[in-house]
Amino acid sequence: MITTASTSPRTVAVAVTGVGLVGSEFISQLLSVSRPNPFRIVALSSSKHTLFSPDGLDVSTSSWKDQLASAPGKPAADLASELARLVTPAQDVVFVDNTSSESVAGLYPTLLAAGVNVITPNKKAFSGELSLFEKILGASVESGAKYLNESTVGAGLPIISTLKDLVATGDKIKKIEGVFSGTMSYIFNNFSSGKEGGPSFSSVVKIAREKGYTEPHPADDLTGSDVSRKLTILTRYIPSLKPKLPLPAGYLSVPTTSLIPATLQSLITPEALASSAAADAFVHRLEGSDAEFDKMRSDALKDGSVLRYPLSHPFATSLGGSDNIVLFHTERYSPRPLIVQGAGAGAAVTAMGVLSDLFKLV
Amino acid sequence: MITTASTSPRTVAVAVTGVGLVGSEFISQLLSVSRPNPFRIVALSSSKHTLFSPDGLDVSTSSWKDQLASAPGKPAADLASELARLVTPAQDVVFVDNTSSESVAGLYPTLLAAGVNVITPNKKAFSGELSLFEKILGASVESGAKYLNESTVGAGLPIISTLKDLVATGDKIKKIEGVFSGTMSYIFNNFSSGKEGGPSFSSVVKIAREKGYTEPHPADDLTGSDVSRKLTILTRYIPSLKPKLPLPAGYLSVPTTSLIPATLQSLITPEALASSAAADAFVHRLEGSDAEFDKMRSDALKDGSVLRYPLSHPFATSLGGSDNIVLFHTERYSPRPLIVQGAGAGAAVTAMGVLSDLFKLV
Ligand SMILES: NC(=O)c1ccc[n+]([C@@H]2O[C@H](COP(=O)([O-])OP(=O)(O)OC[C@H]3O[C@@H](n4cnc5c(N)ncnc54)[C@H](OP(=O)(O)O)[C@@H]3O)[C@@H](O)[C@H]2O)c1
Ligand SMILES: NC(=O)c1ccc[n+]([C@@H]2O[C@H](COP(=O)([O-])OP(=O)(O)OC[C@H]3O[C@@H](n4cnc5c(N)ncnc54)[C@H](OP(=O)(O)O)[C@@H]3O)[C@@H](O)[C@H]2O)c1
Repeated sequence: MITTASTSPRTVAVAVTGVGLVGSEFISQLLSVSRPNPFRIVALSSSKHTLFSPDGLDVSTSSWKDQLASAPGKPAADLASELARLVTPAQDVVFVDNTSSESVAGLYPTLLAAGVNVITPNKKAFSGELSLFEKILGASVESGAKYLNESTVGAGLPIISTLKDLVATGDKIKKIEGVFSGTMSYIFNNFSSGKEGGPSFSSVVKIAREKGYTEPHPADDLTGSDVSRKLTILTRYIPSLKPKLPLPAGYLSVPTTSLIPATLQSLITPEALASSAAADAFVHRLEGSDAEFDKMRSDALKDGSVLRYPLSHPFATSLGGSDNIVLFHTERYSPRPLIVQGAGAGAAVTAMGVLSDLFKLV
Repeated sequence: MITTASTSPRTVAVAVTGVGLVGSEFISQLLSVSRPNPFRIVALSSSKHTLFSPDGLDVSTSSWKDQLASAPGKPAADLASELARLVTPAQDVVFVDNTSSESVAGLYPTLLAAGVNVITPNKKAFSGELSLFEKILGASVESGAKYLNESTVGAGLPIISTLKDLVATGDKIKKIEGVFSGTMSYIFNNFSSGKEGGPSFSSVVKIAREKGYTEPHPADDLTGSDVSRKLTILTRYIPSLKPKLPLPAGYLSVPTTSLIPATLQSLITPEALASSAAADAFVHRLEGSDAEFDKMRSDALKDGSVLRYPLSHPFATSLGGSDNIVLFHTERYSPRPLIVQGAGAGAAVTAMGVLSDLFKLV
């Protein structure tokens, strides 16, 4: 709601679940917000450890990791109930989910119903079962608590907010095209650059993972499931696509082509996708398919293509690094689209998207 | 402030001053917001007529123009005092300034101090005297009322919000480059397209004006003052540029090259710039300089340039229509910038920017 002369400043209690690449960077950006910093951190948690103090944790950039490592565990659902009790007329509570966990995503309806706001780069809740998404919408409308998920698409780039602004102000979306995976952009820009030869596929995936560009399990990028999830998220904000909903259970709206070699297909089970040991093993096994990818690269080049577009396509050459690009073709932005471009993966830009959402709440 | 379970929905009273190209389009977008429409229009005014009703005007897209035309006038300052009285704990009030008037801009500190939020595409308050800008900041911080001015730069494109997000989350701005005038982009894309010949300069300016791309007086575009104002607005959000402030009175931070022919220089007085009759006369007189502009165009072509960039520069060929493009080079978006591109002028996209700001308040 709009702040008016009569509203006194409220405190904002922030609980951070997931302290991996994005979570750690988010915490340091949050602790560096210039004074007066309206936020106080009341919880930090990984899958094994939880720090929680209703009055605010006494943590600093240099101390929180050690403090967390020596703290006991607490199931995320228990933390959720404790957060619900912190919501008062004088204090807003925000749950920041920096995991890629389905079970954590499953807590959003309860949190929102209790008045706890949710901010997250985790795509699961917005691109899976439609029933979960509808529960989230319903709980948010009922309690007035907000969910913000800008960084689920394009990391720190203003993609979802732009789409929402276009739709809310009455523009009509005609077409959205783009490169939606920072990871795949990075992998292909480096593996297949339009010149003869180049590094091996597995080495490029390995570096992308080290740089923090990939999903926790890189197979989530290579199957196309990450991109499909992002497109599903966007479609849910476009009213004209509503009649095609509800989708069948488990259905992802956008078919994609998997890049997982046939020989590694058996490694991609739901359990493996949630395990970091399995992710290590997968990346190691990818080396066995390097010759196969080399051949795809040289075949593409013979056709005057990079491994994704003909060389004449603007996306083939105007992107670099982990760039995303999104072109919104609308009734108002016509015949020329509204374009947003820039790095779409990496901890710093993703955490920035999460923190920007937090500022939007205050 | 964050809405919580305990906050009941508040009404939002909207007063619209300035009902020209942008204002009219804004009113029709506002009246078309899908139900439940949280906004009620309490005032509409031009420089000569004012409709005002504290309980909400009974207006429709087809009726408001006639209703306004037969209403008496009311000084903007009087309207401002009446709006201040409408601010209550249950009702937020928003003053939307769709004029390009300095005197209307001068009312913002009083409005904000009284708890009235201000939304505007009018650059005057944010790019003129630093003392006015500082009064606006101070009044907003004190009362909690907000001022939002996204559409002063790039119309409906997310430029200011992106810059604010980058800065607030601790990124460092290294360089911003771009094409900031939708009008000049349109004029040059059509006048000097990199081919031999083309339409006369005055005819292109005339069409740009008819399409609603130019400032109320097109000389504000041609002198470079519009671009200079936009750059000044951006610099005021960049902390590292703060030490260079305060600027001397009347100083615009960015020098630009004027395109006003020497023979027409005497027509560009402050009074003329505020008069629509003078604007008509100016555009008519521009015909006398067409031969001069023809020569500039053919000289540029002999040099392998369009009238702004060498043909090899990406801005020379990747833009069209009234496109703006802005490249944010920052610590995080490095070596590749965050880019926003799209139409940067026109009533529909500008009004969309204004309405998006209104949604940001609720
Ligand atoms: N990296 C990027 O460029 C990028 C871009 C856009 C969006 N994202 C999204 O950001 C999220 C985080 O990505 P990341 O790269 O930071 O992943 P990550 O490094 O693997 O970190 C995941 C974190 O979540 C924790 N976690 C997992 N399950 C949990 C549970 N049930 N309860 C509590 N904590 C749990 C993990 O704890 P343990 O260490 O104890 O397992 C770890 O701290 C993902 O949803 C990803 O899709 C990332
Ligand atoms: N057009 C664009 O593409 C664009 C893009 C970005 C930003 N903008 C900005 O949007 C604003 C409006 O532009 P526009 O193209 O809509 O201009 P416009 O068509 O000339 O309309 C200006 C309106 O303001 C009214 N007005 C002027 N002085 C006033 C005063 N003192 N009190 C009350 N009303 C007053 C005028 O009333 P009268 O008719 O009675 O004089 C008219 O209704 C400008 O600040 C412009 O810089 C425009």
